[in-house]
Amino acid sequence: MPIHTPINELFDIRHPIILAPMAGVSGGALAAAVSNAGGLGVIGGGYGDRDWLTRELDAAGNAPVGVGFITWSLAKQPDLLDLALERAPKAIFLSFGSIGSFTARIARSSARLIVQVQTVQQAREAAGEGAAVIVAQGAEAGGHGGSRATFPLVPAVVDAVHPLPVVAAGGIADGRGLAAALMLGAAGAVCGTVFYASVEALADPKAKDTLVAASGDETQRSSVFDLARGMDWPKPWTVRTLENAFSRRWGADLGGLRDKLAAEQRRYAEAREAGDFSTAAVIAGEAADLVRSVRPAAAIMADMVDGAAALLRDPPALRAPAQRRPV
Amino acid sequence: MPIHTPINELFDIRHPIILAPMAGVSGGALAAAVSNAGGLGVIGGGYGDRDWLTRELDAAGNAPVGVGFITWSLAKQPDLLDLALERAPKAIFLSFGSIGSFTARIARSSARLIVQVQTVQQAREAAGEGAAVIVAQGAEAGGHGGSRATFPLVPAVVDAVHPLPVVAAGGIADGRGLAAALMLGAAGAVCGTVFYASVEALADPKAKDTLVAASGDETQRSSVFDLARGMDWPKPWTVRTLENAFSRRWGADLGGLRDKLAAEQRRYAEAREAGDFSTAAVIAGEAADLVRSVRPAAAIMADMVDGAAALLRDPPALRAPAQRRPV
Repeated sequence: MPIHTPINELFDIRHPIILAPMAGVSGGALAAAVSNAGGLGVIGGGYGDRDWLTRELDAAGNAPVGVGFITWSLAKQPDLLDLALERAPKAIFLSFGSIGSFTARIARSSARLIVQVQTVQQAREAAGEGAAVIVAQGAEAGGHGGSRATFPLVPAVVDAVHPLPVVAAGGIADGRGLAAALMLGAAGAVCGTVFYASVEALADPKAKDTLVAASGDETQRSSVFDLARGMDWPKPWTVRTLENAFSRRWGADLGGLRDKLAAEQRRYAEAREAGDFSTAAVIAGEAADLVRSVRPAAAIMADMVDGAAALLRDPPALRAPAQRRPV
Repeated sequence: MPIHTPINELFDIRHPIILAPMAGVSGGALAAAVSNAGGLGVIGGGYGDRDWLTRELDAAGNAPVGVGFITWSLAKQPDLLDLALERAPKAIFLSFGSIGSFTARIARSSARLIVQVQTVQQAREAAGEGAAVIVAQGAEAGGHGGSRATFPLVPAVVDAVHPLPVVAAGGIADGRGLAAALMLGAAGAVCGTVFYASVEALADPKAKDTLVAASGDETQRSSVFDLARGMDWPKPWTVRTLENAFSRRWGADLGGLRDKLAAEQRRYAEAREAGDFSTAAVIAGEAADLVRSVRPAAAIMADMVDGAAALLRDPPALRAPAQRRPV
């Protein structure tokens, strides 16, 4: 018996795993690979580069994928939603901002609306505005997020929006995490960091290697890299990355960074171009400890599904002591 | 088949649930109630009040309990460890600080050493110094803690200290949480917030009611209440509480609070005495959403164990779609 939740039917997928729409990293090839492996791949439309989005939608080919947007950024270029909807995506995945001006167009399309939230209150609002699936994202997630943690947020959101399906995001990178998310009442998992380290991800190979070598102890959530990249993120969202020399220099002194902003933004852009990740950000979450190598997305999917299924079928804590391996 | 992990044998308990040693809240009556219900009750020795500890050890009666200490505070009154060990506790539970000066005495006793950590690196160190059980505590926990989150921290610590048993702390308040912790590889759960709202807890009844009415959206981790209480906590630990008028006033302006410290500490102490929780802290974690009433500890234990066992025996995600209730 495979793992099966309400989102399997909703998206016609074999495994309840959704690719996080990592801006600039979750391209068409990665989204297609996740979908072809039985999950729901989602292209990271991010800050709205029309050419990039067109190219990556093309790159996904005939694979059934979704498209994700940063909601407050989409509000500045709302026609990008039409560009996505013209391709009849499986889902539109909106995060960070007010969804009200987009719901009607999505409701008229065949795409299901996934809304990612960071609090119980936001979950109630998204449910009221017509989300088909709520993603409850914990602050341990890589990239942008809020301050609540996955473990207590997921069951609280499940209770608040019942019977809407809730998918857990933040900190999930293996079969243990998928199984745990299901126990918390989630209908599946959104995974980013582990797919950042996939062969198909559009991240710099050096960034992938840096992630593989890192521990979750070495990540931080801050606005330092949004400032460095000149991105005007609204509060309260911050971005979780690996720590590096740049974040150690400026993370506790954003005022000092603002005083030298033009020069530091230039230095940052050059480092990013050069693949110097002592300055440029590796955008990854606390699940970094669980990411040990760069692998094809299909292998990541298979391990996660098989690992979760084995734990769910035969929970070690239900075995008689004699059946367990000695400790 | 009951839920059974390596800590069942280690502590001779029926259920792998450990009471968090909440300072001033986990007294002898609560610790005894948790132990009598099949878990491991732990008295919260906290900041080391000899009279309080003696009284609460007496109050636990013949129930087999453990004793918890704030490690950096115990270092100032190390003889309190002898006071505890004289009662032959099941466990000594140390959190927040260097354990090196205590391990030899504990190793000579019949008590098992439980060490609570907030990072993978701390877990490795505690394992090397002789901990029998590692508690991996996520930042969603109520009271003092670090910055890493339970969901990704637990499996990373499990991998780092294998085969030592790892118990999850932070965000666990019901059967879903216990089952999820076990899926992550934990050998059980440490629970604080849900027992804060127990009949037996030594918290002010108004504080318990305030917690029951609160959402995890309304908690914050800060040093504001340590300043207000005149507690000289070392970095990097902060305390998670419910937000209230006091934390909203000073949480983002610790410098301003320091400027008026004597007056504000006086005001805080008076509010605490008067049970005014618009100023005094309710020390609770993000699991607040899951705590809906004040109940006897035995009822909390029974629901948690029964809920987890039901989920583990028959995971909803392994049922065929027709067997599931419609969404």
